[in-house]
Amino acid sequence: MPPSQQTDSKSEVLVMGAGNFGSCLADHLGDSSHEVLLWSREEDVVKHFNKYHKNPKYLTDHSFPETITAIGPDLPSADILSKIDVLLFAIPTEGLRETLTRLRPRMDENNVPLLIFVNKGIEVGTQALTLEIVADTCGKEFARVATFISGPSFAKEIIRRQPTSVSVASLSQAHAEKASKLFHQPWFRCYTGKDPIGIELAGALKNVYAIVTGIADGLGFENNTRASLITRGLAEMTRIGAAYGASPLTFLTLAGVGDLFLTCSSPTSRNYTVGYRLGKGEKLEDIIRTLGSVAEGVTTTKGLKTIIDELAVVAPIANGIYEVLYEGKDVREQANLLMAHPPVSEIDLPERRRGGPVSQLMKKLGLEE
Amino acid sequence: MPPSQQTDSKSEVLVMGAGNFGSCLADHLGDSSHEVLLWSREEDVVKHFNKYHKNPKYLTDHSFPETITAIGPDLPSADILSKIDVLLFAIPTEGLRETLTRLRPRMDENNVPLLIFVNKGIEVGTQALTLEIVADTCGKEFARVATFISGPSFAKEIIRRQPTSVSVASLSQAHAEKASKLFHQPWFRCYTGKDPIGIELAGALKNVYAIVTGIADGLGFENNTRASLITRGLAEMTRIGAAYGASPLTFLTLAGVGDLFLTCSSPTSRNYTVGYRLGKGEKLEDIIRTLGSVAEGVTTTKGLKTIIDELAVVAPIANGIYEVLYEGKDVREQANLLMAHPPVSEIDLPERRRGGPVSQLMKKLGLEE
Repeated sequence: MPPSQQTDSKSEVLVMGAGNFGSCLADHLGDSSHEVLLWSREEDVVKHFNKYHKNPKYLTDHSFPETITAIGPDLPSADILSKIDVLLFAIPTEGLRETLTRLRPRMDENNVPLLIFVNKGIEVGTQALTLEIVADTCGKEFARVATFISGPSFAKEIIRRQPTSVSVASLSQAHAEKASKLFHQPWFRCYTGKDPIGIELAGALKNVYAIVTGIADGLGFENNTRASLITRGLAEMTRIGAAYGASPLTFLTLAGVGDLFLTCSSPTSRNYTVGYRLGKGEKLEDIIRTLGSVAEGVTTTKGLKTIIDELAVVAPIANGIYEVLYEGKDVREQANLLMAHPPVSEIDLPERRRGGPVSQLMKKLGLEE
Repeated sequence: MPPSQQTDSKSEVLVMGAGNFGSCLADHLGDSSHEVLLWSREEDVVKHFNKYHKNPKYLTDHSFPETITAIGPDLPSADILSKIDVLLFAIPTEGLRETLTRLRPRMDENNVPLLIFVNKGIEVGTQALTLEIVADTCGKEFARVATFISGPSFAKEIIRRQPTSVSVASLSQAHAEKASKLFHQPWFRCYTGKDPIGIELAGALKNVYAIVTGIADGLGFENNTRASLITRGLAEMTRIGAAYGASPLTFLTLAGVGDLFLTCSSPTSRNYTVGYRLGKGEKLEDIIRTLGSVAEGVTTTKGLKTIIDELAVVAPIANGIYEVLYEGKDVREQANLLMAHPPVSEIDLPERRRGGPVSQLMKKLGLEE
C-alpha cells in the first residue's frame, strides 16, 4: 500500500451520526490527522467512545484513533458549529429535515462549513431528495454548495483500509473538490462530479433493484438471470433518472453501477435479504418482523412508484416489485409477466423534461437551467 | 415459466461452429421448432452428434432436439447456403477471416441469409473488429446488415432455459429485429440496438478487465475494491469506446455492463482465473502452460494497447495490465501505482473523433457519418 498522503491543512470535522457509516468515515478522517468530533444522540455511546475509543454498537471490535472525540447527545452548539471546517451528515434521510431545521439557527451564514451528506433515500411522503431537504430547511445558498459522497463502500472494509472508491458530487465543483481533497487517500479514492441529483437517485433506487435481484436468487434463477436483472435494473434507473432531469451518464459512476453491483452481490445486504426471502415464498410482514425493521428499499419502492407514475416512465421492474410489496402479487407470477414482455429496443432514454423535478429544484435554488 | 412462443414462420438456420456457445444456440433455436444445421470442422463430432444427439466435447450431458442435424467437416456447399434463412457464426474471431473468405464465393449476393455473429474479440495484428472482417471478406453490403448477439449468457444455463437476456445489434435495424424475433422467447430475451461496434468493443474489452478483477481478488482485496474496479473498468471501456467512435450508452447494455459483471464475478471464467493466479504471485507463462491455451483477454490486452496509444485515451487500468502481462511488471506495484493516481473527475468522455476508427469503417461501408 502506498504511504498515507498527509494533507498540509488539518481540518476540524464534525460527523453527525455514529452509526456504521458515520463511524467509519470519522475513523478514516481521524486517521488522516484531521481533528474529528463524532456526534451521537445516545449518551451511552458518547461516554463509551471517549473512554474506550470504541463504538459499543457498530464496528465494535475496532479501536478508533484518539484524534476523534465523541459529543452529544444534545445537538452541537453554535459555538462548536462556528469552529468547524466540515460538517458531515451520516444520519438517516428520515431524520434529516428535523435535524437541519434545529441546527440552522445555530449556524452563521457568513461562515458555513463544508456540508457533506452520505445518507441515501427518498423522504417518505414528500419524495424529496436530500438536496431539496437542504434547500427547504437551510436555504438555497446552503443547497448550492451541499456535497454528496456515495459509492460501493462497506464500513467494515473501510476501517481495514481496503481500497475503496467513491463518487463526490456537488452543484459547486469547488466544493466537490474540497471534499475530495479532504477524503482522498490511496486506499480511499474520490472521483468528482457535478450531478448530485443523479448521485442521490442512484443511491436510493439501487435498493429497490437489490430486492428484485434477491427475489430472482430466491426463486432459484442463476448467473445469466442475475446479470441481466442488474443490467436491466440499471437501464431502468437510468431511464427514470433521465426523465427526472439527471444525467444518464451519472448511472455509470461508483454511486450508480458501482453501488448497485455491490448491493446486488451481497447476500448480507438487508434489501437483498428481503428479496431472497420473498423469492423463497415468505410473506413480507413475516420478513419485516424477523428483520426487526423495514429495509430501505421497501419504503423507497413506494416513493419511486409515485415518481414513475408522475413522470410516466416505462419501469416494468419497479412496477412489478411495487405490486409484490404493496398489492400482494405473487413473486413467481410477476417474474413470468416480466419475461412475457415483448422484445424492445435496449437503450431507450426519454427526453429530459423541462418542468420536471430537476427543473423545479434548480428554480428553487435560483439556478438557471 | 410462460409457455414457449412458437413463431409462425419456421426458419432454416445454419450454425457454424459446434463449440460451447454455438451448440447452446443451436439447441435454443431447434427447441423453438426452427430447422437447424450445426456445422463442425471435426468429422467425429458430426457423426457422434447425428447418432446420439449429443455433443461429445461440449455440454456433454445434454440431449439436443432431433430438429438439429450436424454437418461437416467440409465447409457447407453453395447448395446448402442457398437454402438457409439464417447463417450464424459461432467460431473464434481468429478463424473468421479465413472461413468467410472461403464461404463468400459460395454465396449468392441476391439471396443473402440473415448473418449473425456471436464471436468476441479483436483480430490479432490488424486490431479489426468482426464488422470490419466481414466488410473486408464479403463486401460492404454484407457488413451493413451483419447482426451481433452478445450478453451475459453462460451456455450451460441457456440449455437449462435459465432466463437469459442479450443485446442484438446491427447497423440495419430491420436485421436486428429479424434476429431478435428469431431468438426471442420468455427465457431468452432480446434487446435491439444499432451500435454493433460498441457491442463488439464491449465484448472484447470486458475480458481485459476480468483479468484485472481476478488480480485484485488474488491480492486479497475485498468487495469495495472489486466493485470499484469493475466500475472504473467500465468507465475506462466507455472512454475508449467513445474515442473509438461508439456510443457511450452502449456500455450500459447487456453486452456491456451485463457481460462485464458476469465475467468479473465468475471464478470459473478463464480470464478471471489468469488474473487471480497472477495476483497470487504465479508467472504468466506458468499459468498459460497449465491452462492449456491463452485466455482471450491476454491477447486482447495487446490489441487494446495499440488502440489506446493510437487514440491517446487515458486508460491507466489497461496500461497497467499491459505492463504486467507484457513487460513483466509486478502486480502489487502496479496496484499501488494505480491507487497513487491523483483524484480526478469521474465521467470524463473524450469528444468523438472525426476520422477515428468508426469514421473510417463507416466510410468503408459506404455509410455517411
